[in-house]
Amino acid sequence: MTAQTNTAAHYRGDKSFVVETIEAKAPAAGEAQIRIAYCGICGTDMHVFHGNMDARVGLNRIVGHEMSGTVEAVGDGVTNVVPGQKISVRPLDHCGDCPACHAGHNHICHNLKFLGLDTDGAMQELWNVPAHTLHVLPDTLRMDHAALIEPVAVACHDVRLSELSEGENVVVIGGGPIGILVAMVARDAGGNVLISEVNEARLAIAQTLGFDTVNPAKADLADLVISRTGAKGADVVFEVSGTQLGVDAMTEIAACRARIVMVAIHAQKPQIDLFRFFWRELKLIGARVYEAGDYEKAISVIASGGVDADTIITDVAPLADIEKAFVALDTSPTAMKSLIKVGGNA
Amino acid sequence: MTAQTNTAAHYRGDKSFVVETIEAKAPAAGEAQIRIAYCGICGTDMHVFHGNMDARVGLNRIVGHEMSGTVEAVGDGVTNVVPGQKISVRPLDHCGDCPACHAGHNHICHNLKFLGLDTDGAMQELWNVPAHTLHVLPDTLRMDHAALIEPVAVACHDVRLSELSEGENVVVIGGGPIGILVAMVARDAGGNVLISEVNEARLAIAQTLGFDTVNPAKADLADLVISRTGAKGADVVFEVSGTQLGVDAMTEIAACRARIVMVAIHAQKPQIDLFRFFWRELKLIGARVYEAGDYEKAISVIASGGVDADTIITDVAPLADIEKAFVALDTSPTAMKSLIKVGGNA
Repeated sequence: MTAQTNTAAHYRGDKSFVVETIEAKAPAAGEAQIRIAYCGICGTDMHVFHGNMDARVGLNRIVGHEMSGTVEAVGDGVTNVVPGQKISVRPLDHCGDCPACHAGHNHICHNLKFLGLDTDGAMQELWNVPAHTLHVLPDTLRMDHAALIEPVAVACHDVRLSELSEGENVVVIGGGPIGILVAMVARDAGGNVLISEVNEARLAIAQTLGFDTVNPAKADLADLVISRTGAKGADVVFEVSGTQLGVDAMTEIAACRARIVMVAIHAQKPQIDLFRFFWRELKLIGARVYEAGDYEKAISVIASGGVDADTIITDVAPLADIEKAFVALDTSPTAMKSLIKVGGNA
Repeated sequence: MTAQTNTAAHYRGDKSFVVETIEAKAPAAGEAQIRIAYCGICGTDMHVFHGNMDARVGLNRIVGHEMSGTVEAVGDGVTNVVPGQKISVRPLDHCGDCPACHAGHNHICHNLKFLGLDTDGAMQELWNVPAHTLHVLPDTLRMDHAALIEPVAVACHDVRLSELSEGENVVVIGGGPIGILVAMVARDAGGNVLISEVNEARLAIAQTLGFDTVNPAKADLADLVISRTGAKGADVVFEVSGTQLGVDAMTEIAACRARIVMVAIHAQKPQIDLFRFFWRELKLIGARVYEAGDYEKAISVIASGGVDADTIITDVAPLADIEKAFVALDTSPTAMKSLIKVGGNA
C-alpha cells in the first residue's frame, strides 16, 4: 500500500500558517480517518492566530474543529461508522474517570481534550479522530452547511440549558457569530428574540435575518425590553458580549425568575448585581460546549433551515489561502463565518 | 362591646422603641385578628433598629414578622380559619396584577408589601392581617418553636430551589442564624453539610449542632472541600455571608454543574468569576423569601425536630423589654435567635 499524502496547515506562531504536504497516518485502533470537506474559523482559532494560546497549542499545531467530512477509513474495533459516510466530529475527548465524567457530564470532563487545540485538528485533508466523536449526517445535507454544526451545537446547548418555552421573550446581548446562531436557535424554539449589538454592520445582518434589534449605545435597552414585555422583562437572556456593560444589562432587563445563560467567556471578573438576583430570583446558567444531543439537534436545525446557513457563511477560501482568510476575518466588519474549503486542495 | 386594648412596641427611630397600650382595631373584611404569642427579632428588624430603613418604615412602625399566635377574631368573608386556631402568618401581601403575580410568582410580586415593614407587624398583642397569609399549626407545636417558622421557611425555600438530592455535598458559607437554619434544613433533606464561618462563637454553636465546620481564615476552604469530595467539589453551595470573600469561595469550591444559591443580600456589586461559571457549567440561583409550600415544609421540619429549635432560640424577653432585647442581640457574640414573648404583657 502506497503512503497517502495529506496537505495540512500548521500554525507557526505570530499570525502565520505554513501549508505543506506530509504523509498521512493510518487510523489507530478506535480511530476513524476523516477526509475533511470544510472547516470554519472559530473565535478560538483567531485567539490562536493572535498568539494568545501559544502555551496551550505550541508552534506546530494544526487547528480547526468546525468541520464536515467523509469517513475515509476506520481503525480496528470501530463499528459505529463505515467508509463513505458523511460525518461531523464533536471535538471533545474525555478521560472517563474524573468526577465530572462519573456524574455524566463528560463534555466538561476535568481533563477534557479539545480536538484541534490540545491535539491536531481539521485544517488538513485527512484527520484521525476517536470514532466516538462522530455524528453521521443526512446524505442531503450540504457539506459547507455542515461545517456550521459545531457552532450551532453551542447555540443548541445554550438554548436547551435556558429551558426556553414557546412564546417567551428572549434578549441576546451581543450579535456576533455565536450570538446570531443563539438567536436563530432560540427563534426556532419559539422565542420572541431581540438582539442587542453595538456594531452597526452586525445589526444590519441581524435585521436581514429578520430579527428585532437595538443598539444599546443609541437607545435604552432596558426601556425597550420593558415596553416590549408589558413591564415584565425578558424571560431568557443570553449574555454573549463578554463585557461589563453586557453583564450590567443582563440583570437590568431580566424578568422575575428569568434565566440568564452565560455564553461569553469573561476572562476578567465583572461586577454583578447580586441584589437583583435575590430580588427577582434570577438564575444564572453557565454553559460550555455541547453534549451529544446538542449535536443531533444542530444537525436537524441546519437541515430544516432553522439556521440560515447561506447568510451566516460570508466567506469561503481554499486551504492554501488560510493565512489570508484569517487576516480577512480579523479585519472585516461584515464577516460572520469564514470557511476553509479543505478538500480538493492537495 | 367594650373596646379591646392592645399593647404595642413602636419603633421611634435612633435605636429606640416605645411600648404603649392603644385601642385594638376590629379586623376588616378579609382580615383575621391574631393574638401574638412570640415574635422573633429578624436581621431586617435589626436594620430598622439601626436606622437604616427609616425611609421605608417611618418613625412609628410596629415591626416584627417571625411570629406565632392564635386567631382571636375574623372579619367578614373569612372562611379559612376560625377563632382559637394556632397559626403562623406568611407576611407577604401581593398585588395580584403584576407580571410576577400573573406568572404565578406572587412571593416576588413587583408591588409586594412585607407585613411588619411596609405595614405594622407582630410586636403587638393583637395584629390584623389578610386571612390569606395564615397557616394553621398542629396543636402540639410549641408556640416559641413556631416563632421560627418564618426564618425556617426562608431556609426551606433556599434548599428547595437548590434541588438538593440525598447524599450530595453541601457547603454553607456563613454560619449566622439563617446559615445555621439552611444547614439544618439541608441536612434534614439528606445533604452532607459543611459550614464555613469566621466567627468562633458561631462555629462552636454549629459544632454543638453536630455540623462539620471550617474557619476559612485559618484553613484553606477549597482544599478541605476538594479532600472531602474526592476532587469533585461541592454539589450545592449556599452563599449566606454577603461578602466578596464568600463570593470568591462559592465559585472556587463548586463542582461541575453545582448549584449556588444566593441567600445573602449583597448591597454592593461583588466581582464574580464568570469564567468558572462557564468552565464548570455552574448555576447561580437567586432566592427571596418563600412560597406557601415552604411554610408548610417549615412547620413539618420544626414539628419533626429536623430543626433544633431549643438550641437556635438563645434568648426570650417580654415585650416591655424589647429595646433591651435588640441591644443585647446586637452586641452578643453567642446569640442566635432572640424571641419577644408578646402575649401576657398587657
